[in-house]
Amino acid sequence: MENIAFIGLGIMGVPMCLNLLKAGYPVNTYTRSHTHPSIPEAGAHLCDSPRAAAEQADIIILIVNDTPNVEQVLFGENGVIEANLQGKVIVDMSTISPVATKAFAQRVQAAGADYLDAPVSGGDVGAQAGTLSIMVGGSESAFQRVLPLFQVMGKNITHVGDVGAGQITKMANQVIVAQSIQAVAEALVLASKAGADPEKVRQALMGGFANSRILEVHGKRMTAGTFTPGFKVNLHQKDITSALNTARELGVALPGAALFQQLLSSCIAQGGSEWDHSAVIKVIEQLANHSIRDDS
Amino acid sequence: MENIAFIGLGIMGVPMCLNLLKAGYPVNTYTRSHTHPSIPEAGAHLCDSPRAAAEQADIIILIVNDTPNVEQVLFGENGVIEANLQGKVIVDMSTISPVATKAFAQRVQAAGADYLDAPVSGGDVGAQAGTLSIMVGGSESAFQRVLPLFQVMGKNITHVGDVGAGQITKMANQVIVAQSIQAVAEALVLASKAGADPEKVRQALMGGFANSRILEVHGKRMTAGTFTPGFKVNLHQKDITSALNTARELGVALPGAALFQQLLSSCIAQGGSEWDHSAVIKVIEQLANHSIRDDS
Repeated sequence: MENIAFIGLGIMGVPMCLNLLKAGYPVNTYTRSHTHPSIPEAGAHLCDSPRAAAEQADIIILIVNDTPNVEQVLFGENGVIEANLQGKVIVDMSTISPVATKAFAQRVQAAGADYLDAPVSGGDVGAQAGTLSIMVGGSESAFQRVLPLFQVMGKNITHVGDVGAGQITKMANQVIVAQSIQAVAEALVLASKAGADPEKVRQALMGGFANSRILEVHGKRMTAGTFTPGFKVNLHQKDITSALNTARELGVALPGAALFQQLLSSCIAQGGSEWDHSAVIKVIEQLANHSIRDDS
Repeated sequence: MENIAFIGLGIMGVPMCLNLLKAGYPVNTYTRSHTHPSIPEAGAHLCDSPRAAAEQADIIILIVNDTPNVEQVLFGENGVIEANLQGKVIVDMSTISPVATKAFAQRVQAAGADYLDAPVSGGDVGAQAGTLSIMVGGSESAFQRVLPLFQVMGKNITHVGDVGAGQITKMANQVIVAQSIQAVAEALVLASKAGADPEKVRQALMGGFANSRILEVHGKRMTAGTFTPGFKVNLHQKDITSALNTARELGVALPGAALFQQLLSSCIAQGGSEWDHSAVIKVIEQLANHSIRDDS
């Protein structure tokens, strides 16, 4: 059984790491902040640097927020790159820039390790249940080597292409999720102000071409008015801004994603930075001066 | 068994009417244009006016294009209203204005009949298979009376609310479908221009929160480049324009739906009026000067 280093124990990292521990993998962990007590209780060894965690491991998994944090873990002081990496695989499960990903992979490969980008979708619920969707970029051999670990953490595991392809796919995911939320929000506000029961409308729509995971999960949050994350508005703002930046660099226009970014900004202006992203409906409600719920 | 009048034998009407005939209902039909030969072959009686079709029927079903055509069938020369309507039910399965629907229902009710608006989703494929999603507005008693007929034509049948609620739900459906198509188009163009295989990306996304009927069906049409309708660009333009008009009257702002309307206009400018609405991806491709397929 391969030795694992697991770096980043946030809302996603803790349950993912616990699933690896439950499956019997020896795990060395590192986190910048305090560790959730369940991690050492489940048998993980706590290390005091990314370098120390990587030193004894065969496969080094990262899941942290944003590109600069991945860079810090890999290449900062006492970073992963300072460990002996010969024959190892680095697996970045964070959601970061596909362009930076390619540059990180080159530096890691020069140090003798393979590199996979493997961002996830499915939220903390999927992380806990081990049902994450995992989108993987990198070599076939590295993918096959890490696949048993992915299967412990996720359910829909797709090897999309070369290094960077996982991040590109996650970016595409966030672009679709964004506009799906907006679509459901507009539809429910229109139906509600026209006099229909938004929850009945939602259930009727689930039978036809309008059906989506977002209508099922986020549409329910909208009609129920439960905006506890889930996935926070400010994290979706980060991801959609990253998608728009990448699109600009590539020469791609994303008018729908750009519009959603403006709605997120308005949602944050309402104090919604930490709300679930389904709360974008509050912006559409404000535009219509109408709430779809009785609570306001 | 109730006697049926079926008015409107277009791409949707023919298979829906055939399913009623197969189920053993006696059907009187009327159509402005020529009748598909399968209809008289299956035993339907052809009438020379909506009035004649309605005269002998208990339940009068309409499925025609657009509000003025429903008005013509109901209230024009030799229209349904000229028949004896006492104790009958008129079921409008067309997709038309919810405001006009309420006015039509009042005139019909004054003539002694009940009225249901029951627009459908699922396309010609769903009509043929008898798996349409049917969104119904009107009284509970009329709904229960017509339910056995709906069950012959469809699968997901929801009684959403009073008269007009079916049309409002269909409008909400079209608003969601519109932005879902745009979302998938933007995501696939971004991924493809970034170097990923759009079909592999589509398959990976089907495992997570980005999944939708549109990603499954219309996303496949986009990557395969098959834009045979399905649902035509000009019909979606009609429906989304109707939704925007209703929204304006109600005081609802639909920024995403309005943006999609502009993309439809551009698609029509490219000659795409008769293409399937998934062809909106051609507008996003043109904005990026990049096709996701090898064919261009």
